[in-house]
Amino acid sequence: MAAPNQVVNLEEKFAAFDQHWSPKIIGEINDMQLKAAKVQGEFVWHTHEETDEFFLVRSGRLTIRLRGRDDVTLGPGEFFVVPRGVEHCPSAEDECAILLLEPVGVVNTGGAPDSDLTAPEEWI
Amino acid sequence: MAAPNQVVNLEEKFAAFDQHWSPKIIGEINDMQLKAAKVQGEFVWHTHEETDEFFLVRSGRLTIRLRGRDDVTLGPGEFFVVPRGVEHCPSAEDECAILLLEPVGVVNTGGAPDSDLTAPEEWI
Repeated sequence: MAAPNQVVNLEEKFAAFDQHWSPKIIGEINDMQLKAAKVQGEFVWHTHEETDEFFLVRSGRLTIRLRGRDDVTLGPGEFFVVPRGVEHCPSAEDECAILLLEPVGVVNTGGAPDSDLTAPEEWI
Repeated sequence: MAAPNQVVNLEEKFAAFDQHWSPKIIGEINDMQLKAAKVQGEFVWHTHEETDEFFLVRSGRLTIRLRGRDDVTLGPGEFFVVPRGVEHCPSAEDECAILLLEPVGVVNTGGAPDSDLTAPEEWI
């Protein structure tokens, strides 16, 4: 776990891991955690019934497919909040670096926790 | 208020205002609000007794003085979380653009709400 009361440099955090679809916790604000992730390819369709999910693209391009709504595509410096209860499926043709904001304890695959893509909780 | 279900471009949001020390709400995730602010000079010493406060620098350099602790200085792409209850005073010699994350309803001057620097709640 990152020490509290510490300046966090995003570039250093993103340089510290290579795995795709395995968000790393880099900060905590009240009951929310800021996570850094690298993604490529397609994730699984899933839903977070109890929480909104914030996606901010740092590099690359992220597509978020939304059940029953138009797709959303984000470039660097763009964010989108997936409302709670909305089934979604993120994907990226090429590698994409993103920041996520979610409450403590949220499983990345939401209501599909037995997916091979379910990631452990890990601070870097 | 920004429409929900909308892609938000940070560069566009920062280009949309000039005032210093007047955070603009640009997104909401559960009970937290993401805010864009431009700052220059010194703010007031204040405390948020009930909430941590997240500062991420987008451009420029931000110093956060902390009561009884070492100062913290942030450059672009660096963040710091001021723990709840810790009196602090942000300042920037030159103009600095920052993102803030705070619960809905937090007053920017915390326990010093009668300051001339107390800002109204405003979405852009």
